[in-house]
Amino acid sequence: MPEDFEVNPWDVKGKVDYDKLIERFGTQRITRDLKERFESVVGELHPMLRREVFFSHRDLDLILNDYVSGKGFFLYTGRGPSKEMHIGHLIPFIFTKWLQDKFRVNLYIEVTDDEKFMQKNELDLEETRKWAYSNIQDIAAVGFDPDRTFIFTDIEYVRNMYPLAVRVAKKLTFSEVRATFGFTESTNVGMLFYPSLQIVPTMFERRRCLIPAGIDQDPYWRLQRDIAESLGFYKVAAIHSKFMPPLTGTEGKMSASQPETAIYLTDDPKTVRLKVNRYAFSGGQPTVELHRKLGGNPEIDVPFQWLYYFFEPNDQVITAIERDYRSGKLLTGELKEILIEKINEFLERHRERKEASKDMIEVYMRRGKLATVMWETVHGLSV
Amino acid sequence: MPEDFEVNPWDVKGKVDYDKLIERFGTQRITRDLKERFESVVGELHPMLRREVFFSHRDLDLILNDYVSGKGFFLYTGRGPSKEMHIGHLIPFIFTKWLQDKFRVNLYIEVTDDEKFMQKNELDLEETRKWAYSNIQDIAAVGFDPDRTFIFTDIEYVRNMYPLAVRVAKKLTFSEVRATFGFTESTNVGMLFYPSLQIVPTMFERRRCLIPAGIDQDPYWRLQRDIAESLGFYKVAAIHSKFMPPLTGTEGKMSASQPETAIYLTDDPKTVRLKVNRYAFSGGQPTVELHRKLGGNPEIDVPFQWLYYFFEPNDQVITAIERDYRSGKLLTGELKEILIEKINEFLERHRERKEASKDMIEVYMRRGKLATVMWETVHGLSV
Repeated sequence: MPEDFEVNPWDVKGKVDYDKLIERFGTQRITRDLKERFESVVGELHPMLRREVFFSHRDLDLILNDYVSGKGFFLYTGRGPSKEMHIGHLIPFIFTKWLQDKFRVNLYIEVTDDEKFMQKNELDLEETRKWAYSNIQDIAAVGFDPDRTFIFTDIEYVRNMYPLAVRVAKKLTFSEVRATFGFTESTNVGMLFYPSLQIVPTMFERRRCLIPAGIDQDPYWRLQRDIAESLGFYKVAAIHSKFMPPLTGTEGKMSASQPETAIYLTDDPKTVRLKVNRYAFSGGQPTVELHRKLGGNPEIDVPFQWLYYFFEPNDQVITAIERDYRSGKLLTGELKEILIEKINEFLERHRERKEASKDMIEVYMRRGKLATVMWETVHGLSV
Repeated sequence: MPEDFEVNPWDVKGKVDYDKLIERFGTQRITRDLKERFESVVGELHPMLRREVFFSHRDLDLILNDYVSGKGFFLYTGRGPSKEMHIGHLIPFIFTKWLQDKFRVNLYIEVTDDEKFMQKNELDLEETRKWAYSNIQDIAAVGFDPDRTFIFTDIEYVRNMYPLAVRVAKKLTFSEVRATFGFTESTNVGMLFYPSLQIVPTMFERRRCLIPAGIDQDPYWRLQRDIAESLGFYKVAAIHSKFMPPLTGTEGKMSASQPETAIYLTDDPKTVRLKVNRYAFSGGQPTVELHRKLGGNPEIDVPFQWLYYFFEPNDQVITAIERDYRSGKLLTGELKEILIEKINEFLERHRERKEASKDMIEVYMRRGKLATVMWETVHGLSV
């Protein structure tokens, strides 16, 4: 039976059935009970949790236990820098910042310049490193806690990670990484080794690690959970997001290499307007008359999905939009206009913050409190 | 047809047919002409070249061209630190020192603590690192040029090698390393990546690199030669040695894990005497009477082979020993006695030099002229 969709760390194809994906990956749904517990511990629920953008997890309950008991935990997420970032890339970082603010915990952000260079034939190392630093400026703009955040690229920080990476690598065979990632005999040996380096940061502290990231990254965490305890570390916990749909429809995910599918963080207001008006897949009817009569379908309407996913956090407002769109009161053009304004507002603020946070890169990467400790720490060497 | 012998970087089995091995590996014999050329350039021939202990090569002629033309070249060799060193381990370093003295060139010595840890199930990382430093003391005792020698372990120096290592790794697939090294699907991903790190030092300079090492290491150089030019470096040159036979017979090679096959650098005179007398495989006759009558067979006699291979560099003396042994004039016990004295003399001098060179480790690894430059150099990053 052919697969109707495919999700791996490098590709998303087809219309993802997230219930099936939970089963396929062996993760847990974030239940109503767990959400209530989360809310009781934190005091509120982020809209992305309420709306099940973050919908699946591993050991999130244990993270809450460790937080409540005072053991604590830490956060880890990352970015593969092969291109400029689009809005879909930034969203997990915004959610991660919210988690950091609420729990006041350390956060490690791995920028995988090695991986992207080795994965993409057309990419040279200089270009990858340029994107790494460009992406880090966008990530820094999110405004993490400067005392509790360490941003690093693999190529620079490998010096402190390699001893632990070889301990991890010794426990992973070709068969295992092939089965987990769909590698083949033609995969280069750098990509075969690389999962070790993505696993290492889950072991930066002797506490549980929580990873907020797209569910496509879960295969790494599955491997980590197989070997972590044998190395004296905790199995990693994760909280998985769905993919923000591409502008062009609800299949696959936004792709930085297909400009019409995504809004880049550098897109100016005119470009945003043009992209949304021209490419955003609509669930509305072909004519105003028909739309007024039959109404639109928010389930397949990308502008509505984007508002729901991220751009309209107010539940009452989004409910009203959904109702009016479904009834035909709100036209496709009007819905798109709401999104265009939200996006442009967001991008303007992002660029202001990016400009204002230029000096923070040095803090996150080198001079900050956590960064300083991390450069003094060699992981995986007991002597 | 079953293989009658096997040679790979981790194992030597059976009686090696070196002519066949040259064919199998696709290397070149060191011909009489090439030896004459070498002698005319250098002024003399090391006994290990005269006696074809170093018997095979790749591009040694081009190395001589580059030396003569003033382009120059550099030397690179290494050590996998899983155990204490035996005499067989030290011999390539002694030959390498001779090359360095004659050509006055830079020498890089890679101590592969990562590889040994990942290769050997039973070895933990702390133990491997301990052996690395213990082995480096023995290597330093050989007395390399402190301005022109850099000794490093992978785990420490990976910080400067990783960008070039990922460039190399991107060009090597699983199929290729499997075919080259006999890896399997159960090989861990660290070992699959590791060849990249053994290849990197061949690209430390934009000159030709000459590697003096056992021919078992040649598979790495074959891979290097496939990809070096596409990365803007020279194909590596190599000069290959035979394996010093184990004490116990002329098959396989000395093994640090089988004490009866090898003389360790720490063996005291009594132990040396006992090992040679008890274990050294003899080509002599079962009784003195028969020996006087039929004579011994130097081809299979390990004490004679050791003298020829290394311990008796004087050609007239070794010829006399061979003649007397073959004729029956020299008895097995007498031949062993000659070897015992030579070994003990060598070990005593080695231990004196080791004691005297303790402070040199810091020079070779950190503070020396070449070492200082190397710690300031990141390989493979043009920016």
